[in-house]
Amino acid sequence: MRILSGVQSSGRLHIGNYYGALRQFVQLQDQGEAYYFIANYHALTTVRDPKLALELTRDAALTYLSLGLDPKRAVLFRQSDVKEVLELNWILGTVVPQAHLERAHSYKDKIARGISPDFGLYAYPVLMSADILLYSADQVPVGKDQIQHIEFARDWAVKFNTQYVPGYDPADPEGKERGHAPGILKLPSAFVQENAATVPGIDGQKMSKSYGNTLELFGEEKDIKKRIMSIKTDSTPVDAPKPTTDAPLYDLLKLMLPPGEFSDVDASWKAGGKGYGDYKKKLLEAFHVTFGPARQRRQELLNDPGELERILQDGAQRARAEATRLMDQVRRAVGIP
Amino acid sequence: MRILSGVQSSGRLHIGNYYGALRQFVQLQDQGEAYYFIANYHALTTVRDPKLALELTRDAALTYLSLGLDPKRAVLFRQSDVKEVLELNWILGTVVPQAHLERAHSYKDKIARGISPDFGLYAYPVLMSADILLYSADQVPVGKDQIQHIEFARDWAVKFNTQYVPGYDPADPEGKERGHAPGILKLPSAFVQENAATVPGIDGQKMSKSYGNTLELFGEEKDIKKRIMSIKTDSTPVDAPKPTTDAPLYDLLKLMLPPGEFSDVDASWKAGGKGYGDYKKKLLEAFHVTFGPARQRRQELLNDPGELERILQDGAQRARAEATRLMDQVRRAVGIP
Repeated sequence: MRILSGVQSSGRLHIGNYYGALRQFVQLQDQGEAYYFIANYHALTTVRDPKLALELTRDAALTYLSLGLDPKRAVLFRQSDVKEVLELNWILGTVVPQAHLERAHSYKDKIARGISPDFGLYAYPVLMSADILLYSADQVPVGKDQIQHIEFARDWAVKFNTQYVPGYDPADPEGKERGHAPGILKLPSAFVQENAATVPGIDGQKMSKSYGNTLELFGEEKDIKKRIMSIKTDSTPVDAPKPTTDAPLYDLLKLMLPPGEFSDVDASWKAGGKGYGDYKKKLLEAFHVTFGPARQRRQELLNDPGELERILQDGAQRARAEATRLMDQVRRAVGIP
Repeated sequence: MRILSGVQSSGRLHIGNYYGALRQFVQLQDQGEAYYFIANYHALTTVRDPKLALELTRDAALTYLSLGLDPKRAVLFRQSDVKEVLELNWILGTVVPQAHLERAHSYKDKIARGISPDFGLYAYPVLMSADILLYSADQVPVGKDQIQHIEFARDWAVKFNTQYVPGYDPADPEGKERGHAPGILKLPSAFVQENAATVPGIDGQKMSKSYGNTLELFGEEKDIKKRIMSIKTDSTPVDAPKPTTDAPLYDLLKLMLPPGEFSDVDASWKAGGKGYGDYKKKLLEAFHVTFGPARQRRQELLNDPGELERILQDGAQRARAEATRLMDQVRRAVGIP
């Protein structure tokens, strides 16, 4: 099974992002042949600063690699390194009904949020479908708000196959029955990811960049410590049992400690006898145990930009092999030499 | 001065097409460095048959080469052989306001003619602008109905330059003044071609495929002869002077004979003494004198498909050199590695 996923970097990530999505994302590599592309053509629709665009591209790669994406198993590459996607984008576009794009949520949402109504934004779902179809992905992990994109990719794959593959029957897309031909473009399935944990910020609200209550995955050690030490607690005395509701420190410990270790903490928390300061130190330790290796790996990659580039080039090469194979078929089907 | 022009084949051409447009088109090669691309990605928006798509692409190349396009001077290439155009298409699209495309004539016209409202058709002006801007064309010959396309290309080039070129001033696009930078995308000018001659068909109406009154440039010799012999004439006796109005035979002679030769014909036509049959024979001769070399060249190219492919590959290579140069700048400007 091939899983495909586009990733974008929005800059400084926090542990809310990690437990909410990134962790599951990286784990996809255990569920099948995973393709991760860094969507840097897509990013151009909103990022207008070339330095930032390059930095976010690099940062996305660094993040996934640091968090355990194994570039030997998974295929990690920049969208822009496989130019074939732009050709499929155009060819696929010739079978996309305008009416579909006019009802695309993502465009409407972005316009509603005040982003300028540019063609690139409008055309976004076509490129996104090309990304998926180019690699004949079986499954695409998406949030609920992105299911429409996968429906589009399926619809347009069917349209293309119906138009251009003699003997294709939409009711039998894999051409299993006698006299039917399999489609050139494979129909992907949406794989809806439940957003796992909601992670509390240091002030007890949901952790979010906009609340300024985050613990950054790759933040400076000093800052992490300061923030952990300032996690909001109540005035329960040291000896007394501590409340487990409205207690971000408790929730964060539960999230970050291995279950075995957490049960000890849980027992002492409920029994009383230890102050919040001790638990904060415990959390700081847990943070470093959990994210230390990722932070170290990130530093290593930062120190060796050649290695990052080699990984991305290798990914691009593997992705391109797939893309080339498909585009040969697509070109033959439509009559492009 | 660089002139760029996209050509498409609509199949069987007649001498009305030649004197109306093709002739001037081929002559562009004398006015500057001419780039002719065969718009086979564009064609996909309406041609859905791969064999036909390939045939029309080949036919467009054959036509222009037969009619005297010199592939050593002009750059003749297939749009699909320079993939860079698809990358510029995407990148340019990110600065194109949706509002512009919504008022594009070509889309509205095509929909009005019953063509299905597909995204490819809607996105057509963006790819067309990318075609023009990729080669830093100075002039683009267009019919009056296509002026809007050049205006779009100019507008979007300005938008791109303003967004991405530090020091660019739209009032000084070539950066001639101190402190100003030249744009990366060059602003093209429309060069409006007057449709030269209106050519009468063999029945005296305007020559048009839909009237069935054409003389095909590359038609069979027998058919050409039959059609010339059946040109509509009146019942003026052999000895009498012939009328010069409503006289397609006269008009066609005027069009096809060299001026020196025509003045003799003109004199005898007005004096009388010769029958229409003689003039028809004269016209048949003139047809073969005028189009014989083109017809022969076409046959030679048809007999040597390798030669045609070599010409197109050579053109693609020269076009790609320009495209690569520009795309290096564009990628750097937007932040694509």
